[in-house]
Amino acid sequence: MSKQTFWKTLKESTVYSTPWLTVKEETVQLPHGEIVDNYSVVEFRNVAMVFPLFKGNEVIMVRQYRHGVRKILLELPAGTYDSEREDPETAAKRELWEETGYRTKNLSLLGTVYDYPTKDRHSVSIYFTDDLTFEPTTHKEATEDIEVVKVPLSELEEYIEKGEIAVSGTITAIHLAKEYLQKNEP
Amino acid sequence: MSKQTFWKTLKESTVYSTPWLTVKEETVQLPHGEIVDNYSVVEFRNVAMVFPLFKGNEVIMVRQYRHGVRKILLELPAGTYDSEREDPETAAKRELWEETGYRTKNLSLLGTVYDYPTKDRHSVSIYFTDDLTFEPTTHKEATEDIEVVKVPLSELEEYIEKGEIAVSGTITAIHLAKEYLQKNEP
Repeated sequence: MSKQTFWKTLKESTVYSTPWLTVKEETVQLPHGEIVDNYSVVEFRNVAMVFPLFKGNEVIMVRQYRHGVRKILLELPAGTYDSEREDPETAAKRELWEETGYRTKNLSLLGTVYDYPTKDRHSVSIYFTDDLTFEPTTHKEATEDIEVVKVPLSELEEYIEKGEIAVSGTITAIHLAKEYLQKNEP
Repeated sequence: MSKQTFWKTLKESTVYSTPWLTVKEETVQLPHGEIVDNYSVVEFRNVAMVFPLFKGNEVIMVRQYRHGVRKILLELPAGTYDSEREDPETAAKRELWEETGYRTKNLSLLGTVYDYPTKDRHSVSIYFTDDLTFEPTTHKEATEDIEVVKVPLSELEEYIEKGEIAVSGTITAIHLAKEYLQKNEP
């Protein structure tokens, strides 16, 4: 059994807010009674991600510029959603279609993970699908300039080693999908 | 070849800052010329993480309460460092010792990844070690209340499935360490 106990939030105020992220400052009481002022927590919007396996051996990925780290990276299709208006599975289907042009009707949840649970509240829901139909979309967000890349399943580890796949959420999804495929092999 | 190009930062201002995180608002110019105002980027401090393999079959992990997501989670030893005053390898050794009481002299870099490259700038440098000596420490940060847990290598996937290991950085490190061990098997 775990010996840890939860912290108690005594006071909370929003110090920065945009449609994409909110920063809150909390006054918290630790298990031993100490009070910590100004503990900051970032709330990004939750993310839904898909590992789309095409014809049993190719993974549909997206290559795009990421301004946070100022790099061009290869990732799985994913995107944020407004938790009050959309569930993660609907968001996963929508993002997959918007980013790659592939539609799916069947998703299997591989897991829900956190990127930085110390100071960041958002979750990443990760889905698998091998049920894909191409249906081109003209949807593009202003900040999206995406190249769709089909990566052979057998080459994923090389891309990770080269550092072209370098996002923890995407590598986590690859790990979970490989475990899932191993268990569900015919 | 990638078709993506970098964005140009035309203006940048710090809108929130603590020793642990900074939020910047940028005015950026996209490749097709569009201007986007107020693109927010969060700068958490960089993280160093260790996959410590004890006696060839146990992974030394830490269980702790994480206030960002308000959950008790099992993770690999890790911590932030000030990039101007410490390199990631020194930080990894220090955090491993402070959190678990194990010292190491030899680390192998498994990779450097990003948690949320769209809007968050920090990196996570992930190391492997199987060179461990126990040397108890009395160091404890006020906000740290850590239980050290030795998890059999063969049980990691069960913990992930149960959702007790649920942080993308930790699952990424497990993935990289397993690939590393497979390649370096005697």
